[in-house]
Amino acid sequence: MYRNELRVTTAREGEIINITEDVQNVVSAGGIRDGLVHLFVQHSTAALTTIEYEKGVLADLQRALSVIAPDDIPFAHNTKWGNGNGRSHVKAALVGPDLTVPVADGELLLGTWQQIALLELDIHGGRNRTVVVTVSG
Amino acid sequence: MYRNELRVTTAREGEIINITEDVQNVVSAGGIRDGLVHLFVQHSTAALTTIEYEKGVLADLQRALSVIAPDDIPFAHNTKWGNGNGRSHVKAALVGPDLTVPVADGELLLGTWQQIALLELDIHGGRNRTVVVTVSG
Amino acid sequence: MYRNELRVTTAREGEIINITEDVQNVVSAGGIRDGLVHLFVQHSTAALTTIEYEKGVLADLQRALSVIAPDDIPFAHNTKWGNGNGRSHVKAALVGPDLTVPVADGELLLGTWQQIALLELDIHGGRNRTVVVTVSG
Repeated sequence: MYRNELRVTTAREGEIINITEDVQNVVSAGGIRDGLVHLFVQHSTAALTTIEYEKGVLADLQRALSVIAPDDIPFAHNTKWGNGNGRSHVKAALVGPDLTVPVADGELLLGTWQQIALLELDIHGGRNRTVVVTVSG
Repeated sequence: MYRNELRVTTAREGEIINITEDVQNVVSAGGIRDGLVHLFVQHSTAALTTIEYEKGVLADLQRALSVIAPDDIPFAHNTKWGNGNGRSHVKAALVGPDLTVPVADGELLLGTWQQIALLELDIHGGRNRTVVVTVSG
Repeated sequence: MYRNELRVTTAREGEIINITEDVQNVVSAGGIRDGLVHLFVQHSTAALTTIEYEKGVLADLQRALSVIAPDDIPFAHNTKWGNGNGRSHVKAALVGPDLTVPVADGELLLGTWQQIALLELDIHGGRNRTVVVTVSG
């Protein structure tokens, strides 16, 4: 088992960052050729998933998340804390913080159009996000 | 590898239970200091995720789930079985039954505001829920 | 660790295929009696989850996914590529490509009503889908 961390700096709410190459680099550095790589983002207003990393799809995903947690409705979390990121927590809990991808011959076994994406969902930009990467095999 | 089960008794639909400490206790009991802990809820009307365990956020998440599976629309599942929990199944399938969290030095590697939550989504309260906990390292 | 692939041929958008028995067969073939089975669908317009495999519930889940990614709205992805499957990508990113289930005494530790489901979300039917199955123990 090999573990390392990725540090990702984000700029704004709604940003979706392609971390596929960073994850591949951790897998390569760890030297485990066959197994699984597990990713976990240690924040309650960010999330991980896979997606075709195409600008239109990314915008479509953000729009879809806004259906369940719109910009213009009151959130109970905001009433209590006044920091306005109630929608961020809701989206993050639905998409989820973890992802596991198979590794074979040292390479991530992703589909042709499938990339690993970190979703910045907080309304406050310029966040430093940590993704714990654990390779087992 | 170490395995155990958590038993959680729920009271009502929409309840979100913080099981972080229970999971930590299983990890500690198992004695594996570095690795991964996998959680799986063995029910089709409950789910697992991470969230900031704050009362407002929990209410916001429930409201968001009601956008995709409202209380007041007909469900095909209800028509067939008449037990009214169609919305419960839909929400559970979207949030998902499993979660994997890294473990280091015997501790769950969660973020500061990140807790592990069991969502009771069934319309019938007082359920006994089983979460299978598997620690590997 | 044991790895194999499932090949699933789908017929149409919205199809939900019960792959529980196929996954159990891979687990049995691999000979690992206790551990975890990880599933990963290598496509950006398909997804995996668990669900009670009942016709009404499956229809209800599809309807719920259409709330966040409706059939009749414009998608930015479609504008760029013109292939019309923007909604498919959005749904797949939200449900997610991976699932891990515990294995004990050679059997999947699923709940009584819980089945493993592959969701075909692409608008183009007749797809060949690959699910990478990794058993560890």
